[in-house]
Amino acid sequence: METNQVIETMLNHRSVRKYKEDKPSEEVVRAIVRAAQQAPFASQAYSFLLKRKGKLPFGAPLLFTICMDINKVELFMDRRGWKRVANDLGMLFFAMQDASLAAQNLVTAGESMGLGSCFLGNTPYRAEKVKKEYKLPDKVFPLVQLAMGYPAEDFPPRPRFPMEFTLFEDEYRITDEMLTESMKAMDDGYLAQGYYKKQKAKIRLENDREETYTYDNYSWTEHISRKWGQWMIDPQELLVQLKKCSLEW
Amino acid sequence: METNQVIETMLNHRSVRKYKEDKPSEEVVRAIVRAAQQAPFASQAYSFLLKRKGKLPFGAPLLFTICMDINKVELFMDRRGWKRVANDLGMLFFAMQDASLAAQNLVTAGESMGLGSCFLGNTPYRAEKVKKEYKLPDKVFPLVQLAMGYPAEDFPPRPRFPMEFTLFEDEYRITDEMLTESMKAMDDGYLAQGYYKKQKAKIRLENDREETYTYDNYSWTEHISRKWGQWMIDPQELLVQLKKCSLEW
Repeated sequence: METNQVIETMLNHRSVRKYKEDKPSEEVVRAIVRAAQQAPFASQAYSFLLKRKGKLPFGAPLLFTICMDINKVELFMDRRGWKRVANDLGMLFFAMQDASLAAQNLVTAGESMGLGSCFLGNTPYRAEKVKKEYKLPDKVFPLVQLAMGYPAEDFPPRPRFPMEFTLFEDEYRITDEMLTESMKAMDDGYLAQGYYKKQKAKIRLENDREETYTYDNYSWTEHISRKWGQWMIDPQELLVQLKKCSLEW
Repeated sequence: METNQVIETMLNHRSVRKYKEDKPSEEVVRAIVRAAQQAPFASQAYSFLLKRKGKLPFGAPLLFTICMDINKVELFMDRRGWKRVANDLGMLFFAMQDASLAAQNLVTAGESMGLGSCFLGNTPYRAEKVKKEYKLPDKVFPLVQLAMGYPAEDFPPRPRFPMEFTLFEDEYRITDEMLTESMKAMDDGYLAQGYYKKQKAKIRLENDREETYTYDNYSWTEHISRKWGQWMIDPQELLVQLKKCSLEW
């Protein structure tokens, strides 16, 4: 395969959940944030909040809170005598992409400097708390958090779907065979690494559903199925948090 | 500043709108998609649609349509005897991040191989058309498109906000001075490059507002203000497109 240092860095990505105590230098932090800033954007409608003090998730020395930031846009619009009329949902689409594109550069730039990281996906459901903690004004919404530091664990990259299940040319098409092979690639790959066994990460079955899996056959597709088959039923959980940050449509 | 090949690649990012006719090889396409796949994810709830035939935006040889793909998740859940109960808004948050993180790796990996690219942000507003074109099943939503190819233009990277307007430590805080300096950095930076003048990209004023800007003082903050001060008023435009792709909450 064609490759280079950038592509190798990406292919070596792993989400790291154990960190050394060493603190990345100010120069390193500024270098990776600067690289993140240069990501493509619609409106630069995002902000990074950094925390380096106290007990942080996974014992990491750095915690970035990546926010959609429409406040910042309104501030400069106001200076120019403009009032925003674009609706919050549309702004959210652009701001979430601005924030995510920058966040991925932050991850990759960090890895190029020896730093590991791990996203914390439940941030939107704790938005009100995060807002208080960082004194966020209205129209700033904490999208995701990223723990970061020098890894204190080593393991191979996790599996991904086969490319034909990710990339479609001209027409979207998934056959039964592709689905079978893609599930197998993910499940066999995670089982071979003993991922769920080591993490003791089995999701409990609700509503008296009987557990029939052991760590010898519990793997990725079952894990993801248990999340979206049991959790996050009510959109109000998220709509309420958005409203607390003054976003609604 | 601390740097390396990965960070330099990111710092050299520019959105390219003119392309050579040369087609990237199959090996290059596969290498950058593979790198994109290794981005962190919640559920791999995204797909890339690739088009290489016909007249593509900016005359680029490649057009990627980056989709949020909840269909794919439901397919493997169904195989495992699970029905999704997680709501569409919550899934959209995770799928949009999965798609965007992968997309940014695609951009950076492409640049590491000499490919330029440019996002087309209006894709969600054309979702129904894109759905027909690529025969997308329900629950797949085209988030953004990315034109890509070898650049036929050269210019320096565009400015970004000063770092203190992007990165906040412990507490979010924007002073009047910071706002002034940040607007000035963006506006002076774009003016120095003659960006809007060269592209003739001034946004027309609506509702008989009088034009008082020339290309000698029209710059980034005015441009963005005219977008969100005039466009995208009704959330229904987006909600209708989401519904056409069978996503609602």
